[in-house]
Amino acid sequence: MQLATATWPEVEAYLATCTGIVVPIGSTEQHGPNGLIGTDALCAEAVARGVGEATGALVAPTLSIGMAEHHMAFPGTITLKPSTLVALIGDVVGALAEHGFDRFLFVNGHGGNIPSLNAAFYEVHAARRATRPEAPGLRMRIANWFLGPAVGRLAAELYGDNEGSHATPSEVSLTQHLLPEHIKPATFSGPAPRGSFHDRHDVRRRFPDGRMGSDPSLSRPEHGARLLDTAVGEIAEAWHRLLAED
Amino acid sequence: MQLATATWPEVEAYLATCTGIVVPIGSTEQHGPNGLIGTDALCAEAVARGVGEATGALVAPTLSIGMAEHHMAFPGTITLKPSTLVALIGDVVGALAEHGFDRFLFVNGHGGNIPSLNAAFYEVHAARRATRPEAPGLRMRIANWFLGPAVGRLAAELYGDNEGSHATPSEVSLTQHLLPEHIKPATFSGPAPRGSFHDRHDVRRRFPDGRMGSDPSLSRPEHGARLLDTAVGEIAEAWHRLLAED
Amino acid sequence: MQLATATWPEVEAYLATCTGIVVPIGSTEQHGPNGLIGTDALCAEAVARGVGEATGALVAPTLSIGMAEHHMAFPGTITLKPSTLVALIGDVVGALAEHGFDRFLFVNGHGGNIPSLNAAFYEVHAARRATRPEAPGLRMRIANWFLGPAVGRLAAELYGDNEGSHATPSEVSLTQHLLPEHIKPATFSGPAPRGSFHDRHDVRRRFPDGRMGSDPSLSRPEHGARLLDTAVGEIAEAWHRLLAED
Amino acid sequence: MQLATATWPEVEAYLATCTGIVVPIGSTEQHGPNGLIGTDALCAEAVARGVGEATGALVAPTLSIGMAEHHMAFPGTITLKPSTLVALIGDVVGALAEHGFDRFLFVNGHGGNIPSLNAAFYEVHAARRATRPEAPGLRMRIANWFLGPAVGRLAAELYGDNEGSHATPSEVSLTQHLLPEHIKPATFSGPAPRGSFHDRHDVRRRFPDGRMGSDPSLSRPEHGARLLDTAVGEIAEAWHRLLAED
Amino acid sequence: MQLATATWPEVEAYLATCTGIVVPIGSTEQHGPNGLIGTDALCAEAVARGVGEATGALVAPTLSIGMAEHHMAFPGTITLKPSTLVALIGDVVGALAEHGFDRFLFVNGHGGNIPSLNAAFYEVHAARRATRPEAPGLRMRIANWFLGPAVGRLAAELYGDNEGSHATPSEVSLTQHLLPEHIKPATFSGPAPRGSFHDRHDVRRRFPDGRMGSDPSLSRPEHGARLLDTAVGEIAEAWHRLLAED
Amino acid sequence: MQLATATWPEVEAYLATCTGIVVPIGSTEQHGPNGLIGTDALCAEAVARGVGEATGALVAPTLSIGMAEHHMAFPGTITLKPSTLVALIGDVVGALAEHGFDRFLFVNGHGGNIPSLNAAFYEVHAARRATRPEAPGLRMRIANWFLGPAVGRLAAELYGDNEGSHATPSEVSLTQHLLPEHIKPATFSGPAPRGSFHDRHDVRRRFPDGRMGSDPSLSRPEHGARLLDTAVGEIAEAWHRLLAED
Ligand code: NI
Ligand code: NI
Ligand code: NI
Ligand code: NI
Ligand code: NI
Ligand code: NI
Repeated sequence: MQLATATWPEVEAYLATCTGIVVPIGSTEQHGPNGLIGTDALCAEAVARGVGEATGALVAPTLSIGMAEHHMAFPGTITLKPSTLVALIGDVVGALAEHGFDRFLFVNGHGGNIPSLNAAFYEVHAARRATRPEAPGLRMRIANWFLGPAVGRLAAELYGDNEGSHATPSEVSLTQHLLPEHIKPATFSGPAPRGSFHDRHDVRRRFPDGRMGSDPSLSRPEHGARLLDTAVGEIAEAWHRLLAED
Repeated sequence: MQLATATWPEVEAYLATCTGIVVPIGSTEQHGPNGLIGTDALCAEAVARGVGEATGALVAPTLSIGMAEHHMAFPGTITLKPSTLVALIGDVVGALAEHGFDRFLFVNGHGGNIPSLNAAFYEVHAARRATRPEAPGLRMRIANWFLGPAVGRLAAELYGDNEGSHATPSEVSLTQHLLPEHIKPATFSGPAPRGSFHDRHDVRRRFPDGRMGSDPSLSRPEHGARLLDTAVGEIAEAWHRLLAED
Repeated sequence: MQLATATWPEVEAYLATCTGIVVPIGSTEQHGPNGLIGTDALCAEAVARGVGEATGALVAPTLSIGMAEHHMAFPGTITLKPSTLVALIGDVVGALAEHGFDRFLFVNGHGGNIPSLNAAFYEVHAARRATRPEAPGLRMRIANWFLGPAVGRLAAELYGDNEGSHATPSEVSLTQHLLPEHIKPATFSGPAPRGSFHDRHDVRRRFPDGRMGSDPSLSRPEHGARLLDTAVGEIAEAWHRLLAED
Repeated sequence: MQLATATWPEVEAYLATCTGIVVPIGSTEQHGPNGLIGTDALCAEAVARGVGEATGALVAPTLSIGMAEHHMAFPGTITLKPSTLVALIGDVVGALAEHGFDRFLFVNGHGGNIPSLNAAFYEVHAARRATRPEAPGLRMRIANWFLGPAVGRLAAELYGDNEGSHATPSEVSLTQHLLPEHIKPATFSGPAPRGSFHDRHDVRRRFPDGRMGSDPSLSRPEHGARLLDTAVGEIAEAWHRLLAED
Repeated sequence: MQLATATWPEVEAYLATCTGIVVPIGSTEQHGPNGLIGTDALCAEAVARGVGEATGALVAPTLSIGMAEHHMAFPGTITLKPSTLVALIGDVVGALAEHGFDRFLFVNGHGGNIPSLNAAFYEVHAARRATRPEAPGLRMRIANWFLGPAVGRLAAELYGDNEGSHATPSEVSLTQHLLPEHIKPATFSGPAPRGSFHDRHDVRRRFPDGRMGSDPSLSRPEHGARLLDTAVGEIAEAWHRLLAED
Repeated sequence: MQLATATWPEVEAYLATCTGIVVPIGSTEQHGPNGLIGTDALCAEAVARGVGEATGALVAPTLSIGMAEHHMAFPGTITLKPSTLVALIGDVVGALAEHGFDRFLFVNGHGGNIPSLNAAFYEVHAARRATRPEAPGLRMRIANWFLGPAVGRLAAELYGDNEGSHATPSEVSLTQHLLPEHIKPATFSGPAPRGSFHDRHDVRRRFPDGRMGSDPSLSRPEHGARLLDTAVGEIAEAWHRLLAED
């Protein structure tokens, strides 16, 4: 069930049976010459909804904008400051906790969100300690769909070293599967540069077309279908583990 | 064009011709017994995308969670504090301004967002004054689809006094048109209480099922189609006026 | 009774009979060639004190500085960032609530304050939800003296279209009535430009002397006396309605 | 000249001759059984206006609400959090600096404001370092009227040990001089307890009627007149020194 | 060279040759029955100073208090909220950048700091983008001494599975080497529970004496000496890589 | 006992006998041509530890970085914004209060920290009022070692007028006593300029080598030993008074 298409009495009924919720979070940022700017949000949303269908988990609206400061030298990228993202996550968790939700699985599509998510979780814990010291604890976990071991194996099988670390053929394939009408021509060749970086200027300088060690020309919609299934499978398991936690 | 399904080179090309952008913003909050929790976001998104198709405007990802503190006594409602929403809007505008966007039309689906949006606009102006005093100004406008005069006339024609102020038949019709598979049975009768309120407890006390002066049992998908067309039409004009502004 | 000239035992006695308070809020900003920079604060204060005298309401000290970012290209304007104003309002309400006040009527003299006031009210509600979830709700309302229907009718009668939207003859008349020794010569002629604006540069460009569609040369102290009476009358009614609210 | 009763062209003219401004700041807090809640604001305002008249200094609107957390156990006290007061001062100074003001004399009526004022000054310096590193520095000074040496000598002459540290006969006398119609009966006798304190509960416990080591029954309006003159005199000198600073 | 024992002219001379700096950061938190509350700070400081001696790097004062919310159910733990730690790091980096430092190696002793450090780095990048868009980028890196591969191999050799994840024999050994006068008796036996956790209550419930999968009774000062050498060696290399970065 | 070298069970035992704690706080800032950048932190730490040894007080880790904005024109100075320092102090006090500490003696080595410390104390009081209105109050006091009357007498005896106000021979002597291996040559002569200042540019302009009215060439390690003893003696008394407070 998606929260967006539920009514409040339906949520009330759900809460009587389960106090967990899945929250997809992505990013709106450059994904190379043929990757969609919404890639991370689209992928996280698709995986989260798949998990919802597979498990009955309630799925919150997608947080489409994340922390993408390092991609800001490419037009179209939107970023939240980490402090804003921390506040946003804190408000979302706080509001849901008010209704009785206490187990949160953030299905994440973007590595840049991880520090802010983790920071936000402890900011939430600290705020509860200050205001409701005796309230039961909240369980907040991140499931990075693109870092799951099964997804990793499949990506390695499909692309080997050409998977890279940003604008990867995996994530581009997944969006091609979701939105075949938005498959863009890949007019570049070969893998992109690799390596680390610091700020947005440095990213643009080192990775002039936005790809990082990846060859998204290898992307295929049918790969996307397999990757989606695999990701949904392993995150559904994470969901069950979260619910089963003592 | 939607930002989420564009590539960064496509955005670069768009910016060479137009520095305006449409940003849909909604809310995730109770909408009465048969209204979807995502109503305000779904409506704003549909209207914004319609405007994008009608005018060629670039459409940003939907900000699905707004300021809904007053609905927090109903399960499923998520709210941002006004200060968080102000920070969020500021970051989004700031990032887009970095790329050269300078005209922002927020297509809004929720009255509760209006103060925070307006506060955010001046927070942005103040920040630019502090940091880039000579930079050209940013134009930020709100288009509330549900408050447009033509939409108002159509709603009055369709529902008269039963339109009410929250969980209205207009917005429910619009979501019925968008998502016919999510039409919920309306098992109540007659209009809801009317009047003002202060906090969430008071809202729940005065409006026990979440409707405010509205009769969403009158909602019909075909009304939604007409309302959508009407809203798109009048907001497309607002877009053109914004672009034409001296 | 004014809070500033009361003793704490007098406030304690007042609270035993009434838990409402009137809070005047204005702005310190340019008001055209002959309007006083303190116009909005002076007017709000005079109206609020009039309401206090008419009804026995306790009147808090005037918040003289508001959100006037858009007037910052004129010397003498002072502005708070919306976020600062939100924090200020939150602290003032929070402190008064601590003593038992729970009905707040903000008598406002400046349109630019409205978004921040409304944002602040929900910020207060959110903070109480977090820290004192069971505490009774606070009722916070804005009474914009210059937007009341009776004041509007009188301004229309006196000035017709020359009332305009900023540095209006109404508010200038009111200050002329209050401070006849500070009546300034009006050395301009005719109405000012009209229209919308975005940031301070744009305001200065479009409205070079600070008037917006208004002709404050029409101001007269005796108009101010009538406007004050009218505003006090309609806001006194708003006060009674607020106290009577269920 | 008071900023509130000036027009913007008058401020523009003033700035051509002087870039200094006087800002009165007080507090809204209990002042014992017969002291006015607005004492600190009323005194600071009167002294600041006196300085303005004596020297031609421009005088900003009074910041009537300060940091009075420790008095919050007495009805009627309003306090800003230090962080709010720091933000408020920062905005006020920042706005005025925008117009060219660069010497600020805060005429202060309340000891509890001093830390926040000093913190704010460095917050302003830090913000300017970040955003306008080459801009000329701002000079911000506090003149505590009640701590001036001449005022101290006069208070000692008038009240000796009965001056105390809060709700003092000096400040009460000054308000009696300003507002003879608000002289309250003093129905207590003898000096109040002395000593330090920590939070509001502790203040109420140690100083049950709000006086701290003071005997405000000694207050007389004619003392207030002398104190006002004396304070104006020594702060006028501080103003001249500030303007003369290299 | 340590910053604390240098003079400003010495720092000026250093900056003429090197714009990098090492910043130790630890935590003040429970470390099991025989581990010191300052373990993470003491270890980070010792490693950082060792790197300073080995390479000539300037070493900043140790940030001794980190993000330890999850250990707050044990007396003596001090924690910063993630948002406070982000602000702290931002100020420290910002101040040093002002002097010309542009390469920062944070030698970290506590896993709980990692999200806040990473969030802070992007907060710094975002602030520079807003205020000094053309300024050269800052390089900020974390070196977690306890996660280095060589340290990991040595810990595995010394303790195998008994290393655990908190209050580890490695870090306790290191402090025993540094402070032999503070070696505490280990009066427990066997490894502690393992597993994940959410908030402080949960940590205390699952790990009642504070050890997490570790057996710090295996700690020996001579192990500490070897671990320190190993850590210094691999972080010195990281320092050289950072300086050599293009 | 130092917190850093205690275990949590030792802290638990301490709390059963005493709920007070000593927190040293310094600064990392230029101290003239031969003074150490860490002077203020080193001195505060040494005094605090001496107090701990003399009285059995628990001593927290030193907060080594303070508010030193005014020294930022000298390389090596690090500063926190006042708002960051306020947040830091608030978190430290809040965490310790959680364990039952309720009497805090901040042994301070830097005048620039005083406003932020005092602001932080009231920020803590305000936060507790909001969240735990009935909780017992916290007692937070500052002991400025360099302002104690006995220290003042000794400094006057040793240096007379050459003590000055920054980079004083007293504090330099104290660090010479603590760290004889870091005694730097004093290659200047005579006292430095005196006077007030506003921002960092002004400090550098008026005090080109960083000394303010002081002659640190008079510093001697043996003076430092006497100053340390004297400071420990008078702050130990302050500690006893704090514990004895009703
Ligand atoms: Ni991606
Ligand atoms: Ni709606
Ligand atoms: Ni006005
Ligand atoms: Ni007073
Ligand atoms: Ni550790
Ligand atoms: Ni010093």
